[in-house]
Amino acid sequence: MAKMHFPLNKIHKKRFRTHKKVGKAPGTITYLGYREDSVSSLDVIAYDEEQVEQYSPVNVESLLDNRGEKVKWINLVGLSDEGFVEKLGHTFQMNTLVLEDAVNTQQRPKIDEYESYIFGVFKMIYLDAQQNIVIEHVALTLFENDVLVFQELKEDVFGSVRDRILGKLGRIRTRGADYLYFALLDAIIDNYFVVLEHVQEQIEILEEEVYKKPKPRTAQKIQELKKEVLRIRRYISPVKELVSRLIDSENPIIKKDTKLFLRDVLDHCLEINETLQIYREMVMSLMEMYMSNVSNKMNEVMKVLTVMASIFIPLTFIVGIYGMNFDNMPELHWENGYYMVWGLMITVLIIMLIYFRRRKWI
Amino acid sequence: MAKMHFPLNKIHKKRFRTHKKVGKAPGTITYLGYREDSVSSLDVIAYDEEQVEQYSPVNVESLLDNRGEKVKWINLVGLSDEGFVEKLGHTFQMNTLVLEDAVNTQQRPKIDEYESYIFGVFKMIYLDAQQNIVIEHVALTLFENDVLVFQELKEDVFGSVRDRILGKLGRIRTRGADYLYFALLDAIIDNYFVVLEHVQEQIEILEEEVYKKPKPRTAQKIQELKKEVLRIRRYISPVKELVSRLIDSENPIIKKDTKLFLRDVLDHCLEINETLQIYREMVMSLMEMYMSNVSNKMNEVMKVLTVMASIFIPLTFIVGIYGMNFDNMPELHWENGYYMVWGLMITVLIIMLIYFRRRKWI
Amino acid sequence: MAKMHFPLNKIHKKRFRTHKKVGKAPGTITYLGYREDSVSSLDVIAYDEEQVEQYSPVNVESLLDNRGEKVKWINLVGLSDEGFVEKLGHTFQMNTLVLEDAVNTQQRPKIDEYESYIFGVFKMIYLDAQQNIVIEHVALTLFENDVLVFQELKEDVFGSVRDRILGKLGRIRTRGADYLYFALLDAIIDNYFVVLEHVQEQIEILEEEVYKKPKPRTAQKIQELKKEVLRIRRYISPVKELVSRLIDSENPIIKKDTKLFLRDVLDHCLEINETLQIYREMVMSLMEMYMSNVSNKMNEVMKVLTVMASIFIPLTFIVGIYGMNFDNMPELHWENGYYMVWGLMITVLIIMLIYFRRRKWI
Amino acid sequence: MAKMHFPLNKIHKKRFRTHKKVGKAPGTITYLGYREDSVSSLDVIAYDEEQVEQYSPVNVESLLDNRGEKVKWINLVGLSDEGFVEKLGHTFQMNTLVLEDAVNTQQRPKIDEYESYIFGVFKMIYLDAQQNIVIEHVALTLFENDVLVFQELKEDVFGSVRDRILGKLGRIRTRGADYLYFALLDAIIDNYFVVLEHVQEQIEILEEEVYKKPKPRTAQKIQELKKEVLRIRRYISPVKELVSRLIDSENPIIKKDTKLFLRDVLDHCLEINETLQIYREMVMSLMEMYMSNVSNKMNEVMKVLTVMASIFIPLTFIVGIYGMNFDNMPELHWENGYYMVWGLMITVLIIMLIYFRRRKWI
Amino acid sequence: MAKMHFPLNKIHKKRFRTHKKVGKAPGTITYLGYREDSVSSLDVIAYDEEQVEQYSPVNVESLLDNRGEKVKWINLVGLSDEGFVEKLGHTFQMNTLVLEDAVNTQQRPKIDEYESYIFGVFKMIYLDAQQNIVIEHVALTLFENDVLVFQELKEDVFGSVRDRILGKLGRIRTRGADYLYFALLDAIIDNYFVVLEHVQEQIEILEEEVYKKPKPRTAQKIQELKKEVLRIRRYISPVKELVSRLIDSENPIIKKDTKLFLRDVLDHCLEINETLQIYREMVMSLMEMYMSNVSNKMNEVMKVLTVMASIFIPLTFIVGIYGMNFDNMPELHWENGYYMVWGLMITVLIIMLIYFRRRKWI
Repeated sequence: MAKMHFPLNKIHKKRFRTHKKVGKAPGTITYLGYREDSVSSLDVIAYDEEQVEQYSPVNVESLLDNRGEKVKWINLVGLSDEGFVEKLGHTFQMNTLVLEDAVNTQQRPKIDEYESYIFGVFKMIYLDAQQNIVIEHVALTLFENDVLVFQELKEDVFGSVRDRILGKLGRIRTRGADYLYFALLDAIIDNYFVVLEHVQEQIEILEEEVYKKPKPRTAQKIQELKKEVLRIRRYISPVKELVSRLIDSENPIIKKDTKLFLRDVLDHCLEINETLQIYREMVMSLMEMYMSNVSNKMNEVMKVLTVMASIFIPLTFIVGIYGMNFDNMPELHWENGYYMVWGLMITVLIIMLIYFRRRKWI
Repeated sequence: MAKMHFPLNKIHKKRFRTHKKVGKAPGTITYLGYREDSVSSLDVIAYDEEQVEQYSPVNVESLLDNRGEKVKWINLVGLSDEGFVEKLGHTFQMNTLVLEDAVNTQQRPKIDEYESYIFGVFKMIYLDAQQNIVIEHVALTLFENDVLVFQELKEDVFGSVRDRILGKLGRIRTRGADYLYFALLDAIIDNYFVVLEHVQEQIEILEEEVYKKPKPRTAQKIQELKKEVLRIRRYISPVKELVSRLIDSENPIIKKDTKLFLRDVLDHCLEINETLQIYREMVMSLMEMYMSNVSNKMNEVMKVLTVMASIFIPLTFIVGIYGMNFDNMPELHWENGYYMVWGLMITVLIIMLIYFRRRKWI
Repeated sequence: MAKMHFPLNKIHKKRFRTHKKVGKAPGTITYLGYREDSVSSLDVIAYDEEQVEQYSPVNVESLLDNRGEKVKWINLVGLSDEGFVEKLGHTFQMNTLVLEDAVNTQQRPKIDEYESYIFGVFKMIYLDAQQNIVIEHVALTLFENDVLVFQELKEDVFGSVRDRILGKLGRIRTRGADYLYFALLDAIIDNYFVVLEHVQEQIEILEEEVYKKPKPRTAQKIQELKKEVLRIRRYISPVKELVSRLIDSENPIIKKDTKLFLRDVLDHCLEINETLQIYREMVMSLMEMYMSNVSNKMNEVMKVLTVMASIFIPLTFIVGIYGMNFDNMPELHWENGYYMVWGLMITVLIIMLIYFRRRKWI
Repeated sequence: MAKMHFPLNKIHKKRFRTHKKVGKAPGTITYLGYREDSVSSLDVIAYDEEQVEQYSPVNVESLLDNRGEKVKWINLVGLSDEGFVEKLGHTFQMNTLVLEDAVNTQQRPKIDEYESYIFGVFKMIYLDAQQNIVIEHVALTLFENDVLVFQELKEDVFGSVRDRILGKLGRIRTRGADYLYFALLDAIIDNYFVVLEHVQEQIEILEEEVYKKPKPRTAQKIQELKKEVLRIRRYISPVKELVSRLIDSENPIIKKDTKLFLRDVLDHCLEINETLQIYREMVMSLMEMYMSNVSNKMNEVMKVLTVMASIFIPLTFIVGIYGMNFDNMPELHWENGYYMVWGLMITVLIIMLIYFRRRKWI
Repeated sequence: MAKMHFPLNKIHKKRFRTHKKVGKAPGTITYLGYREDSVSSLDVIAYDEEQVEQYSPVNVESLLDNRGEKVKWINLVGLSDEGFVEKLGHTFQMNTLVLEDAVNTQQRPKIDEYESYIFGVFKMIYLDAQQNIVIEHVALTLFENDVLVFQELKEDVFGSVRDRILGKLGRIRTRGADYLYFALLDAIIDNYFVVLEHVQEQIEILEEEVYKKPKPRTAQKIQELKKEVLRIRRYISPVKELVSRLIDSENPIIKKDTKLFLRDVLDHCLEINETLQIYREMVMSLMEMYMSNVSNKMNEVMKVLTVMASIFIPLTFIVGIYGMNFDNMPELHWENGYYMVWGLMITVLIIMLIYFRRRKWI
């Protein structure tokens, strides 16, 4: 179980810096992430059916050049430079309040529709090299022909989408920005399955431990896993409703074709939620099982004590009798007194053994 | 209980291969089943009131011949040949995304309505020869005059429907494809009752075990049964809503007559869901009962220990007194000292026995 | 508690014969009851304000004579003769699917409205002579001027309605078939209160037992009662919604006047559901209480053991010391050594007693 | 805690006499109260802004004299004279079914609107002189200019309303019958707070008891309190929805002005429901706490036993050794053998004490 | 944990003075706060984009001067002078019932819309200098150009809003009264995060305590924390729905622009509710963990007892045998009898140690 060290504290700490913002005016763009050394980098992939180009734009304004000709995926990594985020957002005429959410790494998942764009905050949840569960903030903005991604860290789950665009795999190159948006969302949600599988493995490992050799530490691990499931659910469970709202949305930015795919994503969300619900119940069962095992072990211990004590205490009493020093104790002087006492003790022993055997204690 | 070995692990393993698909483009038709050696076979039963014929079509295109003359039940067994599935689906102008779900054995139950067909994914749940619960993926597509079934394994629960068509039993031969669709769905759901009965039997066996001779292993079995109920419910409980949506659907493919029958199916679904709910509560009661039995047994053990120790410890003390070697111990020299000690000990014994009898410990 | 033998197994067995029907075509009228020797009998009570007659009709067709002149209550007892049921039903132009539900004793409560009649399945729940809870299937069909009752067994809860008709009590003779339908439904629901009272008594008896003298068997009884409440609820709880649907129905067969009375019935249903909910919580409290008592008893046992052992073990050690055989043990030769040891032991005893008294253990 | 004797049994007994009515025709006015000696008395307070008069009417018909000139509060105390109730009701043209509910002391809270009046059943819940919780049935009927109150017992919670009318306090005299109706309802609900406060006190007393000196009886008291909360909730919780329905009602008998006040009453109902919910959780916490205390006490007992036994059993073994009678036991003949044994025993004792101290058991 | 003394009793006491009002007419303005010495003070901040002034008005009527020119934030601290509150309220033409809620410190959170104003009651929840959680009543009234605040105590959470107005930070000076209203509401809700963080810390401290060194007192602390979470939730959870109603409101007092910001507040409310839900589950986990630890400790204690007793009781029996005084006991006279007994005892000891080692008890 060496692999299982949940970075709970880090996440904790992170979650509550929110109140550092207490007292600030709403609409103040404040990055709340916890990595000092994050640097921003801006990359663009522009493509249509024939061509694809990948470049870092010289300046923010150039992003508006030839707008609409190709689908542009504009990807900002690193959100600590609030001024740059503001400039970028304003270039695309995004509301300041929205930009605040874009860099607010504590923002819960949400989708807001505006006249000219759809803005969504999600959590990428994935395993890092040490098998830790990493929860990373990402904001996806869909314009008519562009997708603007605000991403906290360099690592992401979008590799497969990039490959499909660059390698011209599937239909992605023949479709618009809304399809790209959906593909990115799909990539995020697909990764939830990986995390779920990891949780499933942890449940199985703990199940094994509970059944085979439960230790006091096991209960602690179960509770930690429970907290972990609680925490993941917090970020995953709202997504279902968001996607379902996207499907019902009448915003022309999302084409009818793409909605077919969104229904598929919704299906996945439903499955994930069900799975999380089942995990919750499984973890509770684990704790029940653990407690039942603790009780069973206690029973075992008590039985050993009771058997040992019940056998030897009467025997000790018997030998105590003949250790008394009365002048007048006829048995002491019988020729076979000693052997008769042995006989008596063996009889008692056999009776006790039969009794315990009958009760199935030995 | 030899019969009760739930193939939990298999199902587990299966459930999460989903993420093998992580990174693939949506609409990629990928079979996720776990049997390497499954082979595909395609069979057709075509019937009207007068005639019925059963054959394997020479090629996929021939399935469209004389379309609408007879009701055609096209049955594909084995989904591992994705190319063939795609060809078959495209012949019937099914969407690629839909075909993806048709072979995706992890797809949760769903019904999607399209303009010219209704597509549903369900789970056949039945007992195999070893009384294991098998969960098998099946996709039913209803066209105006045809029913296209995608089935994972050769075994199915449709035997009775086949018999009714071939033997001209009941009304099935006089009715259209929608009735056939409903009959297949009904057959699937009828089999859920068999599985429920099996679960009920397991509950009764465990109940007996809990009441008569609970062992540490019993708790584990209860938890396993709980997981099994959880898992079955996952596949069964969405069906209710799907059927109720079918009833409300205004799709002309489903005739008003058939809806009467669907209401019947809905009734069954309601009953199944209620039953599963009751099983859940029963299994929880079992665990409670088990824990209460463990506590009671502990009480039994403790009482025996307490009675034995409480009786013999004071007696041992008494004989200990007269085992002391003081020069001046008058009692030791009394003529009847030894017998008086016996008297004392018997008195103590009787007092203890009365005390314990009063407390109902013996 | 001799009275409390729930016929659980019977009901169990019964509930799941459903799958005997697995494979049969829907619309097959199959009686699923469990009494081989039940015989059918058909009785009619026809009445208007002036006259009432009670007779067994010569043949089924004669039931349609003079239809509409008087209100006819046609009562079929015994559902095992499926052919007869079919004939009867078809005479009244009832759908075969509906007739299937009429004899399907496992059918859950339901109300279906058709153009010319309203069909409802309910469960009569009452106590038999041995105070067993009997659950009996009954189907009530309301036509414009007739009520057709399909009843499983001869015993019923309709005696009071019969008396009111024959004795011209209340308003029943001045009103139509819909009022009769409502009166029968009311009689069924009124009897639920009797059963609830019986359950209440069982709860009180078990409460007494838990508080006064809990035994391992008590836990089992609590669990059985819990199952019983679960089972009754299953048949009672859907009725509320059915009645409320009847009230909202715009079917002209039910007159506005009668709906006033139905509202009353709805009130009763609400009360019954609330009561069942409260019973559920009470039974759970009982189990909690039982477990708390088991723990308390264990505490009692442990205290006795601890007090006995803690007092006598040190004393036994003391007498052990002076049972040693060292050549050089000065105390043994003191004139008052023996008495001093007694003094020491009594001192130890008093200290222990004070200690335990302070902890309130004795 | 002497004050806390819930009259549970009385309430119980009362609740289930309902089935005495089993078999009676609906619309039979039957008083179900449990006091034989209750007598009816009818009082009227008639008032407008200028005048107020209080009198007992000579006959029922006179109540209709000058109808509409003044607001009339007609108050019937004692519901056992069913004939009188019927006469009174029919004078005001109330439906017989409604009158049945007016005297049915088991009727759950309800509000029914009719063309010319609004009829409501509520429960006054208050503490009597012995601090018992009394649940009293009351039915309030609002006509355009009159309020007709059916009250089970002489005691009521309407004193303050009477004072306000007679003393011309507040706005009550300037407003119509609907305001009076609301004032009475408000008085009933205000008294719920008194009862809640009483429950709160009981919770605090039990909390103290659980924390300070839990006894087996404490668990029983907690369960009784739980039942009490359950029972109060049963009568209080439906009121919220009833009031909210009154607010939405478009019945012209309730003026728009009065609805403002009703919103206030609704607020109170919401608060009461929340409070009851919190009490429920608190009582469950109490039980948890109690169980945790029982376990802790067991731990205490076990530790004492273990410490005593673990210290003295080895010592007793040592002295046992030198109580053996072997001819050849060199130690017995050593000059300082006895003192060396003491040394050994003290060493063992110290080691044990250090061990237990380290484990914080002593 | 010295800091953690929840002023539960104070809050309790406070909550239920409500019934001091029992019997008073509705619309009676009664302050229910618990501080005798609170004094009222009235302050105004009037601002527009150019200017800001802060003053205490000479009389209440002057507040209406130049109404609409500037945005006025009128702040009343101290609600004990009911006459003044009434005068102030009537100046602004507020309903008496509303004013009653304004001073009713037990009023639950609510928002009521009237024609010319929106009235809301909220709870400021913050930590005082001793880290106690203080719950303070505040009523916010929004007029077209004024915000009227009724505040119980001098301390508040509005400092940051004041600073932004006076220091001309952010957009607040360029916007209307509705924006001010929203900013105050935002300040209240932002402070909930601080309290949540405090609760989180308490959970972490208790978690540490449960894992490291659980004491009986720990369970009590967990239960107290649970109660605290329950209590905070009571005041926080209704806010979500209120804000969401404000967003849907079509009242022209709230401009469309401001609603954008309200959506942000709603987001915070959702997050707070989720967090409280998670805390609830965490606290329940703590209790579970505590109970599991108590059981584990008991197991430890029992193992020590069992090991000690099981080893020494048989040995004591052996030495007892050779303490018997039979004339004829050959072993006693063997040359090496004594050493052989030692050998026997050491053998027994080793067997026992191996047995316990195998069971992992030592």
